Amino acid sequence: MAKYALGLDFGTLSGRAALADIRDGRIVSTAERAYPHGVMTDRLPDGTALPPDWALQHPQDYLDVMASIVPEAVTQAGVQPRDVIGIGVDVTACTVMPVDREGVPLCMRPQWAGHPHAYLKLWKHHSAQRFADEITRVAAERKEPWLKDYGGRVSSEWSLPKLWEVLAEDPAVYGAMFEWIEATDWLVWQLTGNDTKNACAAGYKNLHRKHGGYPDEAFYAALDPRLRHVIAEKCFTPVSPLGSRAGVLRPEMALKLGLEPGTPVAVGNVDAHVCVPAAGMTRPGQMLDIIGTSGCHMCLAEQKADVPGICGMVEDGLLPGAWGYEAGQSCVGDHFAWFCENCVPAGYRQAAGQRGVNIHQYLTGLAEKLRPGESGLLALDWWNGNRSVLVDFDLTGLMLGMTLRTRPEEIYRALIEATAYGSRMIIENYREHGVPVDSFIATGGISRKNGMAMQIYADVLNMPVQVADAEQGAALGSAIFGAVAAGPRAGGYANVTEAAQAMSAPVRAVYRPDSGNAAVYDALFAEYRRLHDYFGRGGSDVMKRLKQLKK
Amino acid sequence: MAKYALGLDFGTLSGRAALADIRDGRIVSTAERAYPHGVMTDRLPDGTALPPDWALQHPQDYLDVMASIVPEAVTQAGVQPRDVIGIGVDVTACTVMPVDREGVPLCMRPQWAGHPHAYLKLWKHHSAQRFADEITRVAAERKEPWLKDYGGRVSSEWSLPKLWEVLAEDPAVYGAMFEWIEATDWLVWQLTGNDTKNACAAGYKNLHRKHGGYPDEAFYAALDPRLRHVIAEKCFTPVSPLGSRAGVLRPEMALKLGLEPGTPVAVGNVDAHVCVPAAGMTRPGQMLDIIGTSGCHMCLAEQKADVPGICGMVEDGLLPGAWGYEAGQSCVGDHFAWFCENCVPAGYRQAAGQRGVNIHQYLTGLAEKLRPGESGLLALDWWNGNRSVLVDFDLTGLMLGMTLRTRPEEIYRALIEATAYGSRMIIENYREHGVPVDSFIATGGISRKNGMAMQIYADVLNMPVQVADAEQGAALGSAIFGAVAAGPRAGGYANVTEAAQAMSAPVRAVYRPDSGNAAVYDALFAEYRRLHDYFGRGGSDVMKRLKQLKK
Repeated sequence: MAKYALGLDFGTLSGRAALADIRDGRIVSTAERAYPHGVMTDRLPDGTALPPDWALQHPQDYLDVMASIVPEAVTQAGVQPRDVIGIGVDVTACTVMPVDREGVPLCMRPQWAGHPHAYLKLWKHHSAQRFADEITRVAAERKEPWLKDYGGRVSSEWSLPKLWEVLAEDPAVYGAMFEWIEATDWLVWQLTGNDTKNACAAGYKNLHRKHGGYPDEAFYAALDPRLRHVIAEKCFTPVSPLGSRAGVLRPEMALKLGLEPGTPVAVGNVDAHVCVPAAGMTRPGQMLDIIGTSGCHMCLAEQKADVPGICGMVEDGLLPGAWGYEAGQSCVGDHFAWFCENCVPAGYRQAAGQRGVNIHQYLTGLAEKLRPGESGLLALDWWNGNRSVLVDFDLTGLMLGMTLRTRPEEIYRALIEATAYGSRMIIENYREHGVPVDSFIATGGISRKNGMAMQIYADVLNMPVQVADAEQGAALGSAIFGAVAAGPRAGGYANVTEAAQAMSAPVRAVYRPDSGNAAVYDALFAEYRRLHDYFGRGGSDVMKRLKQLKK
Repeated sequence: MAKYALGLDFGTLSGRAALADIRDGRIVSTAERAYPHGVMTDRLPDGTALPPDWALQHPQDYLDVMASIVPEAVTQAGVQPRDVIGIGVDVTACTVMPVDREGVPLCMRPQWAGHPHAYLKLWKHHSAQRFADEITRVAAERKEPWLKDYGGRVSSEWSLPKLWEVLAEDPAVYGAMFEWIEATDWLVWQLTGNDTKNACAAGYKNLHRKHGGYPDEAFYAALDPRLRHVIAEKCFTPVSPLGSRAGVLRPEMALKLGLEPGTPVAVGNVDAHVCVPAAGMTRPGQMLDIIGTSGCHMCLAEQKADVPGICGMVEDGLLPGAWGYEAGQSCVGDHFAWFCENCVPAGYRQAAGQRGVNIHQYLTGLAEKLRPGESGLLALDWWNGNRSVLVDFDLTGLMLGMTLRTRPEEIYRALIEATAYGSRMIIENYREHGVPVDSFIATGGISRKNGMAMQIYADVLNMPVQVADAEQGAALGSAIFGAVAAGPRAGGYANVTEAAQAMSAPVRAVYRPDSGNAAVYDALFAEYRRLHDYFGRGGSDVMKRLKQLKK
């Protein structure tokens, strides 16, 4: 009798359940539902207006969606509840909120329902920027040893800036909160009754290190004396390693979900990071690039290396037993979308329509006929700043080489090439700092939709690009963790590596580098790198000065 | 009784006649006709195929067009032929051909009609590039003193490369030619029977200097021993100053044109340069910028100054009694046209259509709402290389500052700003090398059609921009020279300055700088200049290396 693991993946707009066959990871059913409240950027449910840059969610949505999609997936698959042997959960991060002693989000208590800070702050809630800037400043001033593990900069998307924002702007909510908790850990608490904290979010989003723990109290006190004991007071739950079991399904929850009480539940995880085993990445030397609107480059190493300009390096942060490194490109597919929205002439739209293809397909058809270097164009892919390796969001896009004969498809291709060069910068940076990268796995929307882009990546990186067939990447990843939570005796696996080897997504395609193209791209990448360093490393600060003038 | 001067302006595609009132320059009639053979780029009239980059014309077209437009303009105005007191002629340059001893173009002799080199080579006949390159090389090697007067570079559009091309490729035509002559001088010969050579074309297009004459014979011999005596053999006609009289109308020609025999005819001139008096530029310190697809910046100085990076400095080359300087921008309106053709989204076309405006008007409507610096964009206006002050056609366009919120109208405005910065570079280069520029007159298509662009020019240059209402700029300029040829006793003028003061085009509009905008543009221009020098003066040769790769 086949056994299944349930992966629950909560994205920005919807939650998704997937049942994966324990033997080979095949997805036998999925169900998806959007959050009823979506992302609240303008007002709370009661009409309270929100300031700019806010992005909240309602935690009840997660419970309601879960109660809908899990029974649907199980029924659809025709699987017996007892054959679902383990559950894993991932959520976007840092997506975080205050809860009371019972684990009830403050926003679900009537007396706090009108307080914006009582809600779930979504990862892209950006109004805490000034707190993030101050944290970075103080940490740099104090020469905090952990700062370089995060590329020298604390993001406004992380836990501490969002929490400090609560304290500064609504001290009553701060005082009333029992705990400040990631949504993924809160969901696991709802499922199991156990309050756990996953090592991934704690490491990448809240400055926790396996050896060393959190920053010193003196650091927090330097930010604000009221924050001196913030970890002990609001973030006290001990960190659990990834791949461990958080507990088992509570009877009430089993009833709601149509599963067996006692089903093992894995410690929570983060939606991007959980893709690592789903895409078949299990050993040092492999790099996974999730290529969507932006890019997320993850890799593993046996030892800690001081790699500058990354988003985070966390021991056991991706898989237990290894250092997990994360770097990022602020903008990948977003470049191409910007171009299509703002720069494609009417004639091209018309021609695409006549051929019954979308504008990306039409442009790709033209651009793939161009040889590397033929357009004479070169771009810096900084339309949304540079996350890695410069960690500088005041940088902006650049393109050069235009002539009166430059055509739209040449610009389109140059933008794609620029994002490939950006990936190569990240890889070379890893290599130059002692983290080997010998294979490249791609997943995410662009990897599935744009074969030309993947061939360009292969030629630019001069490595085969292996595309993981992981449309349900995160859900499959959570199912893999569910199978590990179940353990071998229940028909699951002993550890994540074994589970991933059996269950990871099949390879959808492999793009192999063409040696002629790779040679031309070597020359072009050398030019990219010179411009990158000139504009990104102090040769010219013109981009920053223009941004200042803009204000 | 009113008196009139006739201006004959022969452009690339058509010839135009204008009758101007001697008192105030008011144009009382115009007539225009296209050349029957147009521009021959593919084949001769007999079907002989032409190689790439060729551009020929048929000289008979000029005679036929003249015989049509002059009577038409005179009749239309209801003017008595005796009241037309002087004639001036301008043609594009260097537009040049071989003629026989009778002044008959070789191509009009049956035995040479099948020889491409026997025809009129239009200014944009570009196939002599390799001869131009070799001339530049040899001149630089020999440290020819005149080379710096031409920005260190001989253009393929000039006289000598086109003539050397004849010698190299069709020595029989070379041998049969009596003289190698500019079309404007040939037309004056047809009108008067006198073979003259105008100082403007000789100076700007054939390396002639008032003091110093042509280069040494040793220089020509170094190019090709057969060229040693080229000036004495093929370009022997003495140079006549601008503003002098070439002769009077021959009876046969008077009959054809419906004018009085004996009417004074001015020495020929060049279409761009003849605009100088028409636009009211009569004194040192004034700059005239003819802003069309490209830009031509002319100014006058009492003394010679070594200004690097210009197209030519010629004593008496624009107006008698002054040094005439010419600099140029390879691309002005062409930038905007490129943008509109290649980068404007369908929605914008639609919105323009709904409002009943063209796309330039629509974009301008959006772009003029932006404040200087607001877009954060900065461009180098090098889509067609850089003529002045870098004299480097391997440079290419650059734009930086793009973000995901960058809109098409911001890019459009940034391109306009970049051409204004390019003009400022030219002006500052003049000033830094001892040629004062204290006022700015604009003419040409862009100056009439785009008020926003002119306001941007005023703000960037921090000078009033005075737009000359000179739709018939060149024809009016030739009429002014015609009035000088007539002289005061016949009702004309004693010199070009007096004639221009009376007859130049009225000011159509004056754009005055806004001091707030000018301050922001000072900061932006400083950034432009840094990038200009970095990419244009050896900081980075990336543009050239990309062009090499392209090949």
